[in-house]
Amino acid sequence: MAVAELCIFHLGTGSPSVGEYLKPVIKVIEESGLKYQLCPMGTVVEGSIDEILELVKKCHEAILKAGAKRVVISLRIDDRTDKELTIEGKVKL
Amino acid sequence: MAVAELCIFHLGTGSPSVGEYLKPVIKVIEESGLKYQLCPMGTVVEGSIDEILELVKKCHEAILKAGAKRVVISLRIDDRTDKELTIEGKVKL
Amino acid sequence: MAVAELCIFHLGTGSPSVGEYLKPVIKVIEESGLKYQLCPMGTVVEGSIDEILELVKKCHEAILKAGAKRVVISLRIDDRTDKELTIEGKVKL
Amino acid sequence: MAVAELCIFHLGTGSPSVGEYLKPVIKVIEESGLKYQLCPMGTVVEGSIDEILELVKKCHEAILKAGAKRVVISLRIDDRTDKELTIEGKVKL
Repeated sequence: MAVAELCIFHLGTGSPSVGEYLKPVIKVIEESGLKYQLCPMGTVVEGSIDEILELVKKCHEAILKAGAKRVVISLRIDDRTDKELTIEGKVKL
Repeated sequence: MAVAELCIFHLGTGSPSVGEYLKPVIKVIEESGLKYQLCPMGTVVEGSIDEILELVKKCHEAILKAGAKRVVISLRIDDRTDKELTIEGKVKL
Repeated sequence: MAVAELCIFHLGTGSPSVGEYLKPVIKVIEESGLKYQLCPMGTVVEGSIDEILELVKKCHEAILKAGAKRVVISLRIDDRTDKELTIEGKVKL
Repeated sequence: MAVAELCIFHLGTGSPSVGEYLKPVIKVIEESGLKYQLCPMGTVVEGSIDEILELVKKCHEAILKAGAKRVVISLRIDDRTDKELTIEGKVKL
């Protein structure tokens, strides 16, 4: 399992607020069945690389469908082969 | 107030684990007095731009002092002028 | 077309240098046929979302195959629907 | 010397274009006297941690002064103690 953080912003809507456009994105994440945690600067998910990249694709589709004219997606994946990474494990030092 | 996420990795220690090097960094964040939240992919802090950048400087010093040979620091700051951003507010859509 | 920046580094090799592990990653990017530009802090590629995510998957495979025990992949995608983004266009203001 | 990439965008202007708001930011970077390179997904600068963080502060001021209501700043710093990092050195593998 890898752990990844996904942060999505959209530009060009006339409002500096992003919540309305992120609701369909959160819905996509919920429906993915992947373990996730909403954090202040992004959503953290736990899954295989394939699952994470598939989720990014669906989130991209969802925010464009919501009307975004321009979208900036930041993804940071942390993966290791010697032991499993988990959302819980990553907050313990 | 701005909200920022700070993610620090070090390279060149022979081990893929990072916890030992991050302990002094977390100590610096605690001692800053800023409101913060440990998240799976980084630590989120709330403060003015000056406070956030000063904290980045101290975290950089702390991880080098802990023995890191190379350090990669990712910082993402979200700031808006029309209303206050807070750690709590950012997880509500 | 979207434009994306891919930044990959690995932990746990005992050396703070990353070049040796990145050579197979650059080879994968070259062989993808996508337009790309090596930049100091990452490699920028131009393609559809599907092409970019497929490339991330292959780069992840390549660096693990090169022996990395832990890998951190940062990806930032910029996509807009009202006009095409290109690598050349993005450096003109 | 450290090498850092700075990526700034703003939200809430009604247009998905960012160039007009970035011009004063580029001017600040030019006037800093630091070595820099405009890349498709951000501007790369070379300097000490103090110089880089001071520059981030000035860029933040410049984009707010240009009228941005909300600004997202991504900064990634790469620093190592065993040898100097440079913009030129970082594109050679």
